[in-house]
Amino acid sequence: MKKAVCLVSGGLDSTVTTYIAKKNNYDLFPLSFLYGQQHEKELQSARTIGSLLTEEEHIFFTLPLHQFGGSILYKSEKPQIKSTPLDKIGTLIPPTYVPARNTVFLSIALSYAESLDAGAIYIGVTATDYSGYPDCRPEYIEAFQTMADLATKKGVEQKQIKIETPLLYLTKKQIIIKGVELNVPFELTWSCYQGRTKACGLCDSCQLRLKGFQEAGIRDPIEYETTPDFYKIK
Amino acid sequence: MKKAVCLVSGGLDSTVTTYIAKKNNYDLFPLSFLYGQQHEKELQSARTIGSLLTEEEHIFFTLPLHQFGGSILYKSEKPQIKSTPLDKIGTLIPPTYVPARNTVFLSIALSYAESLDAGAIYIGVTATDYSGYPDCRPEYIEAFQTMADLATKKGVEQKQIKIETPLLYLTKKQIIIKGVELNVPFELTWSCYQGRTKACGLCDSCQLRLKGFQEAGIRDPIEYETTPDFYKIK
Repeated sequence: MKKAVCLVSGGLDSTVTTYIAKKNNYDLFPLSFLYGQQHEKELQSARTIGSLLTEEEHIFFTLPLHQFGGSILYKSEKPQIKSTPLDKIGTLIPPTYVPARNTVFLSIALSYAESLDAGAIYIGVTATDYSGYPDCRPEYIEAFQTMADLATKKGVEQKQIKIETPLLYLTKKQIIIKGVELNVPFELTWSCYQGRTKACGLCDSCQLRLKGFQEAGIRDPIEYETTPDFYKIK
Repeated sequence: MKKAVCLVSGGLDSTVTTYIAKKNNYDLFPLSFLYGQQHEKELQSARTIGSLLTEEEHIFFTLPLHQFGGSILYKSEKPQIKSTPLDKIGTLIPPTYVPARNTVFLSIALSYAESLDAGAIYIGVTATDYSGYPDCRPEYIEAFQTMADLATKKGVEQKQIKIETPLLYLTKKQIIIKGVELNVPFELTWSCYQGRTKACGLCDSCQLRLKGFQEAGIRDPIEYETTPDFYKIK
């Protein structure tokens, strides 16, 4: 059976991506990162999703990026996460940007994939309805693939480790519809930047998620403290 | 003053590279990795070299790559490091190869450099007299730069973080001569794959180092358990 390393954050996008990898008949090796995030709610979701899809070990890789600072996603920074008007999300790189995060994650996944002799790495990046992160753009993924082919022993042997980004050109609405087709348990995913009992409903991540559910005409099964006015599904 | 992140391993090549960065008037931010190596001798050397060149914090980044396996460099693998005939070194990728190591190191350096607003990352890779590692080739470095320019906020703002590889086209002999010019304290560096009191003199790394000193006509000031027949300098 073909092996794939799957980057699992516990969020909606990485969960749908992992279900797609499963459907593509890969033996899944889930990989999550502890990089000093504000909270562990998404990691709890990641653990649950991983356990539903594979019996292979789920690696939680400790990666002390927060010692560099530079992002309000880190626990050590402790700022208030502000709500951005929906039409402004994605127009600027937001303060939740973690310097070179996807590059670090993909590089470690590449090392793991080569050690396992895996043929693919699945990552749930999306360039549509995105949040302004430079490392989610198609040209970035393409450049990473070119670099990865030159970086590894497998590459030298002409055996590619393919960076698979099945959501790259999908909108959040399309991702949710794809998730419904694959019976993704949305109620187990966590997207909110806050780590409270219920999702806040106001951070960029909550707003983009709710906009996707609204456009798909599907009710988001997780609980929110509040929901934006545009979300009409009860 | 311009800032540069310097990858400092404690070996000869990274030390000469760091001295070159210093000569180029950078404010140096040394970065070393704890990735499950067989021994800590080179990290002790790294710490000393860092302290000689800068008062900035030297980051020792914990990176548990060894949990993936795949290299005899890891402590957990505990194999005997064998001696390769000198003319065979570099013809095959050796078992000391760590999957995607330079990619992981450079990616984390990129995250650090962006957090610091640094303009350069110095790495002591060399494609000449090399050991067969795919991630030391010029085309690999070029592909990493292209990817890095697309990966970061600084890249989006057209402010490049330049991957500086001043040794890329130098032979070990030329690196040593460059080190002499810059008053590099070779006696403080450690290249041996073993972690004993003296360098073994037989592993690939010792042999390549001694060949360089022999060709430069300079005595290697560190102590060896034994030296290969080709090394005639007493």
